[in-house]
Amino acid sequence: MSSSVLKFGGSSVSSLEKVKNIADYLKGRVEEGEQLVVVVSAMGKTTDELMAQVDSITESPNEQDLAVLLTTGEQQTISYLSIILNDLGVKSKPLTGYQAGIETVGHHLKSKISKINTDLFEQLFGTYDVLIVAGFQGFNGDNEITTLGRGGSDTTAVALAAAHQCPCEIYTDVAGVYSTDPRIYSEAKRLDVVSHEEMMEMSALGSGVLVSRSVEIAKNYNIPIYLGKTLSEEKGTWIMTTDMLEKKAVTGVALDEDMIHVTLNYPENDTQLLDELFINLEQKEVNVDMISQIANNEGLQLSFTMKDTEEDQIQKIFSHLKQDYPELYFKIENRFVKVSLIGSGMRDMTGVASRVFRTLIESGISFYQVTTSEISISYVVDAENGEEAARLLCEGFEL
Amino acid sequence: MSSSVLKFGGSSVSSLEKVKNIADYLKGRVEEGEQLVVVVSAMGKTTDELMAQVDSITESPNEQDLAVLLTTGEQQTISYLSIILNDLGVKSKPLTGYQAGIETVGHHLKSKISKINTDLFEQLFGTYDVLIVAGFQGFNGDNEITTLGRGGSDTTAVALAAAHQCPCEIYTDVAGVYSTDPRIYSEAKRLDVVSHEEMMEMSALGSGVLVSRSVEIAKNYNIPIYLGKTLSEEKGTWIMTTDMLEKKAVTGVALDEDMIHVTLNYPENDTQLLDELFINLEQKEVNVDMISQIANNEGLQLSFTMKDTEEDQIQKIFSHLKQDYPELYFKIENRFVKVSLIGSGMRDMTGVASRVFRTLIESGISFYQVTTSEISISYVVDAENGEEAARLLCEGFEL
Repeated sequence: MSSSVLKFGGSSVSSLEKVKNIADYLKGRVEEGEQLVVVVSAMGKTTDELMAQVDSITESPNEQDLAVLLTTGEQQTISYLSIILNDLGVKSKPLTGYQAGIETVGHHLKSKISKINTDLFEQLFGTYDVLIVAGFQGFNGDNEITTLGRGGSDTTAVALAAAHQCPCEIYTDVAGVYSTDPRIYSEAKRLDVVSHEEMMEMSALGSGVLVSRSVEIAKNYNIPIYLGKTLSEEKGTWIMTTDMLEKKAVTGVALDEDMIHVTLNYPENDTQLLDELFINLEQKEVNVDMISQIANNEGLQLSFTMKDTEEDQIQKIFSHLKQDYPELYFKIENRFVKVSLIGSGMRDMTGVASRVFRTLIESGISFYQVTTSEISISYVVDAENGEEAARLLCEGFEL
Repeated sequence: MSSSVLKFGGSSVSSLEKVKNIADYLKGRVEEGEQLVVVVSAMGKTTDELMAQVDSITESPNEQDLAVLLTTGEQQTISYLSIILNDLGVKSKPLTGYQAGIETVGHHLKSKISKINTDLFEQLFGTYDVLIVAGFQGFNGDNEITTLGRGGSDTTAVALAAAHQCPCEIYTDVAGVYSTDPRIYSEAKRLDVVSHEEMMEMSALGSGVLVSRSVEIAKNYNIPIYLGKTLSEEKGTWIMTTDMLEKKAVTGVALDEDMIHVTLNYPENDTQLLDELFINLEQKEVNVDMISQIANNEGLQLSFTMKDTEEDQIQKIFSHLKQDYPELYFKIENRFVKVSLIGSGMRDMTGVASRVFRTLIESGISFYQVTTSEISISYVVDAENGEEAARLLCEGFEL
């Protein structure tokens, strides 16, 4: 059996017409002897429409209930695609997350895949040539329906490829991975190949193409991922093990927009407050990013950055803490971006950090926090300077 | 635990506003100490909208695929209702057919419930006060999603009540069961109580309130069913064991509209043709109703009635048979109705059939076929005479 996992995202399946085009393409591949696993998202605006209904009911819907609701979007897409394929004479079967054996753990709306039943597909490929799996969903140990959170359908696809040890092809509106966002730097180049590690950094640092958890799974199971443009001849990017590649110091620049910056002051001896803060952040699954702490006259000052999508959550956490700690002072500022340089060559090359410092200083762009990893450096700058910083760095490093 | 199964049909849940009203009502009952199983249908026109999309793809969608699609309608309703209940502080959990342990056998779109996992609800009532089950759906031995066909949500409700040995309340637009359709005979009376048997006959003979398979389950497991108007003070009808009731000869008149009449002629010695016909009818799950056979000059003439919703199917079957038996002659006529009198008292009383004959003959209404059961008599008449026949019989038997 020659098989691959293919994933088609929201805009690739935004209308029945587009779903039909995908079905035609899949038919062609089956006729060439392949057996395919196809992962699809909800069609177009389906999820937004369901959420609009929920918003008209309550601000804080029960998470279990919401997972049951939202998963109907993908369930409809798998049905339509399978109806079309069967109508074209391609033996196809739609599978919900539960039916595909995708077991998860964790919060209902931010679950992680814990196990995939691999025997099932082997068996079904005895009867069917295309297995269509609803992305973004699974079920937990209590037999409850769960969703995988942001980028969930990509994660479904990569996890299925990992479990079945086959390549994964992810199709979106964009042809592959660029050295930086082409909307920011028009001379940005499409990369033929990036390593799993580089892609993980790029994803974690804000490149919207693929969430880093998906790339991490692919890296752990050594699965190649092809990122391409849906139904296009245009060449995409392979994410794969790249021991054979010549290393450049910097392969890409990523821009993580819509960051907020949170500052709080507290007495030096009051560690209880911090404890409670971090327990709350963990329970609500709020991700904080760059953390730093300094001492000043009034005690200690802690600051961190996070995505502004979670601003409501952090506001709630602070309002709650304020009741127990009336002396707590906090400030939430928005309109920041994080600019990051990524390249596995950074490990062996020096001078990258100082070149960035120089570039930013020469152009008069202030930066607030800096963090580094083995293969990346990130700077927080004012939102209005983000794109210019990215452009300057692309030019500086010839990307 | 004091528990009941409540079912709310399509028009009771046609908008979020109506779903909210139902949630308020359920909250009141939970506050009185009840634990409830609630079965809901798809909201308003959801199923029609999904089918319209399918119709734009193909005339003959794969049945497995279609079941996966259509069940999303009920899955959305259970989610919304549970979001609202949890928001009101009522501990509620939504369950798809699979999660509710509703096992089925048979065709994907016309499945029959074979087994219900009863331990599950006992356990869940330890945590939740309302379990919301998606009506109309289940899963088969291959872990595939199935639907229960016409009246499926009622069947879900009654089967759950049977499995858990508790009463079943079915809420619709109509307050209970009438001696005949009030639109036909304005003086029709609402019945306080009917027996399971009478209700089965009334349902089988065209009274649209409840499908007979649901009543049959209730009868077999001796479950009382209350049929009432959604969120209304108006009294409904109990369907229950009625040994204590004084028997009337006739309790109701049912009208089964949109019947077609099929006639075919075939040589006396050609039983192969009939064999094939009935095998085809069984495979396509086409229900034929009143069957009669007479000999004429050219051989034998078989005729039967059936619902006109299955006219396409029967046309296909005959077209197919015609290829193998070119000499086959068949005729499909529509515009007939079946008028039936139902009453468990008929068993012990004589003269009902002759009174009906006299009534119809005096008013000049021709009838074509007559069948009787222990507690009913049915007549096929021309569609344009159906309502008048029903009215005359209601008057004649003082219903």
